[in-house]
Amino acid sequence: MSRLGKHSLFMLGLCLVFLPFSLSDSGAQTDDAIERVGEKLIDIVQTQAVAWNEGDIDEFMTAYWNSENLSFSSGGKTHRGWKTTRDRYKKNYPDAATMGKLTFKDLEVQLLGEDAALMLGRWHLKREEPAQGNFSLIWRRFDDDKWLIIHDHSSSED
Amino acid sequence: MSRLGKHSLFMLGLCLVFLPFSLSDSGAQTDDAIERVGEKLIDIVQTQAVAWNEGDIDEFMTAYWNSENLSFSSGGKTHRGWKTTRDRYKKNYPDAATMGKLTFKDLEVQLLGEDAALMLGRWHLKREEPAQGNFSLIWRRFDDDKWLIIHDHSSSED
Repeated sequence: MSRLGKHSLFMLGLCLVFLPFSLSDSGAQTDDAIERVGEKLIDIVQTQAVAWNEGDIDEFMTAYWNSENLSFSSGGKTHRGWKTTRDRYKKNYPDAATMGKLTFKDLEVQLLGEDAALMLGRWHLKREEPAQGNFSLIWRRFDDDKWLIIHDHSSSED
Repeated sequence: MSRLGKHSLFMLGLCLVFLPFSLSDSGAQTDDAIERVGEKLIDIVQTQAVAWNEGDIDEFMTAYWNSENLSFSSGGKTHRGWKTTRDRYKKNYPDAATMGKLTFKDLEVQLLGEDAALMLGRWHLKREEPAQGNFSLIWRRFDDDKWLIIHDHSSSED
């Protein structure tokens, strides 16, 4: 929580919604387990926002699956690969002014099984020309209980 | 396949990509099982396109989870509920001219566990003012092995 206290302008407005997803009989997902995953993923995106607001896109990118199979959909097109995604972020947000200050809100996490989750949320960039929109993130659990974004579909509000 | 022969203008351009998703030790997902799910989901969206091209939005909507928890993200906003989704489709596509002719292509299915899947694809509307874009669909397996869309994030190409 210290990170949140430190970044007083970080608007939480989080709406933590867990929609339990019934799993195969062999996997007993307790409400506690579901809540733990949700909190973990929300903590990761909060860390992403901190990195973004420090101008650190490389750090921001550590939440994504470092693979050629990472998929990123925006503007009606889908791009592939972690490097491509990072390079596009750097190209579209070349300086602090363009990057603005990022806040997330209305974050919801839904488990899709023991090793996958869907996160919905809204993003807002405070800058001279503000921007906002929403996103759908697919997360996957990898070894050592590490969760990473394997697919990101982000949109700007019309 | 008869449906496809019947609708000769139905452009397949399907790209069936299966990215096996490792599951919990208790679930043995064979390549066959993964392929079967992928084919099933692609068959459902093909049926959706047929319904759309017959002007039948109600039939088109049967692929979606009939629940208040269905989520649909487009234009940077997220709406909830099957009825709301259906009503928005009918409002945005009030007649045959606006509905145009729908084709899907570049369909990919990725299992996210035993009971969930991610489908990526592109859509195209042939009409006086053509439109195209992409979508990310989250599917969930319900009772009787019925797969339904629980989340749809669709975008238009800029």
